[in-house]
Amino acid sequence: MNILVTVDSNYISPLKVMLKSLFINNIEEEFTIYLLYSRLKDNELDDLKSFVSKHDNKLEAIKIGDNYFNDAPTLMHYTKEMYYRLLAFKFLPQELDKILYLDPDILVINKIIDLYNIDIENYLFAAAYHNKIYIREINRLRLSPYEIDKYYNSGVLVMNLNLQRNIIDEKHIFDFVRKNKSKLIMPDQDILNALYSKSIKSIDEILYNYDARFYNYYKILSSGEIDMDYVINNTIILHFCGKKKPWHKKYSGKFHSLYKHYEKIALA
Amino acid sequence: MNILVTVDSNYISPLKVMLKSLFINNIEEEFTIYLLYSRLKDNELDDLKSFVSKHDNKLEAIKIGDNYFNDAPTLMHYTKEMYYRLLAFKFLPQELDKILYLDPDILVINKIIDLYNIDIENYLFAAAYHNKIYIREINRLRLSPYEIDKYYNSGVLVMNLNLQRNIIDEKHIFDFVRKNKSKLIMPDQDILNALYSKSIKSIDEILYNYDARFYNYYKILSSGEIDMDYVINNTIILHFCGKKKPWHKKYSGKFHSLYKHYEKIALA
Repeated sequence: MNILVTVDSNYISPLKVMLKSLFINNIEEEFTIYLLYSRLKDNELDDLKSFVSKHDNKLEAIKIGDNYFNDAPTLMHYTKEMYYRLLAFKFLPQELDKILYLDPDILVINKIIDLYNIDIENYLFAAAYHNKIYIREINRLRLSPYEIDKYYNSGVLVMNLNLQRNIIDEKHIFDFVRKNKSKLIMPDQDILNALYSKSIKSIDEILYNYDARFYNYYKILSSGEIDMDYVINNTIILHFCGKKKPWHKKYSGKFHSLYKHYEKIALA
Repeated sequence: MNILVTVDSNYISPLKVMLKSLFINNIEEEFTIYLLYSRLKDNELDDLKSFVSKHDNKLEAIKIGDNYFNDAPTLMHYTKEMYYRLLAFKFLPQELDKILYLDPDILVINKIIDLYNIDIENYLFAAAYHNKIYIREINRLRLSPYEIDKYYNSGVLVMNLNLQRNIIDEKHIFDFVRKNKSKLIMPDQDILNALYSKSIKSIDEILYNYDARFYNYYKILSSGEIDMDYVINNTIILHFCGKKKPWHKKYSGKFHSLYKHYEKIALA
């Protein structure tokens, strides 16, 4: 199974926690982790390599040269790494036809194979949108006149690489960023939605992109069905969205103890 | 390592969750689980046996005959099983000099060996008390004139079996129960405290009997030191005290997601 991750030095520990959860809950799978990076120290890269191989999986590290995105516009606070996800197809081996991108701020707590094997048809991506009215409305207004009725989360993406190579044009992306600089809050996610929303296959957010902040919301909306028992036994991907992260000192949340458990076994 | 548990049909699943947590966090140890029971079905016993042996450990099931405690007084709602813990030394093999009793409503989340190897000196038990003033006061008043300045929790007990065989007298216990029937709320724990409080070696509650209800209390009292990170990495025994249990549908608490995680892997 091909997994795509991107990382800088600040996110190495969360990345290891995410990978640990992926590996131990999917021991029957063989993973090749494709890591796109520009700024990692040699010892950090070695550490990641030995971490992945300790779990009998493979790491393919792909360094993106400093001047690769020379033409690309940048935004305050954001580096050119914001393009890695959308343009990954340019850096990955040509023979790969499919890859699953995963953010480092997630836990994979059950079997991932059904997501990986989803029939992606003629879509560029498969992704989940968080079905809260205010999220949809805010982003619809913010990104108009681009038509968005679902605002997809870019933290979990099944990528149809063959189709992407034919359709996604980096100039198109850079133009969009130049024109909309002032509107972009989460640049890669905004680009994904503004330019490719109609080419995204929707997947179930409860199963594949459960926003850990919304436990009570999901539970109430489902009349109690989607409770802790349901999530632990059915949800595949728990996503710690937002600014407060479970590895921060002051974090508090329904999945704090579970995250810390995975962190302990990953970093031991 | 010798572990003592008692169980009836209602507690088999929690017992398996507790044992799973003990086993996977202490894979380098060999355990013999001594199970005292009176009312288990054959298939339940077989299930427990295969569960323990699947983890390369041993189960020794010891059935207590129905008429063993014929002379013993009983209390409303409580069966004679309330005596198993305190009189376990009578039923265990004579050559055992030490055993660790564990309640089924706990998770063992780190290495247990230091507790097992505690120097028990000339104490009958080692146990933790929950250092909340109102708990101590209520129980001190309730059990007076028996002098109790610490009210020990009986859910985690290191047992000095050699000394117990010489000192603990079942008649003494039965007399106490007859005289104090109306006062007893948690009979085995009350007996332990009223009769043997001074023969109990104190162990650290944060490490060995962390009351999962009191996360905020422990954290505030320690000026933030005993936070989630501390507990997950240092606490050995998490105890889900009280009436609300993490396997109940309506449970909610800081360690809910962690408990459900262990439950999933134990009962899969």
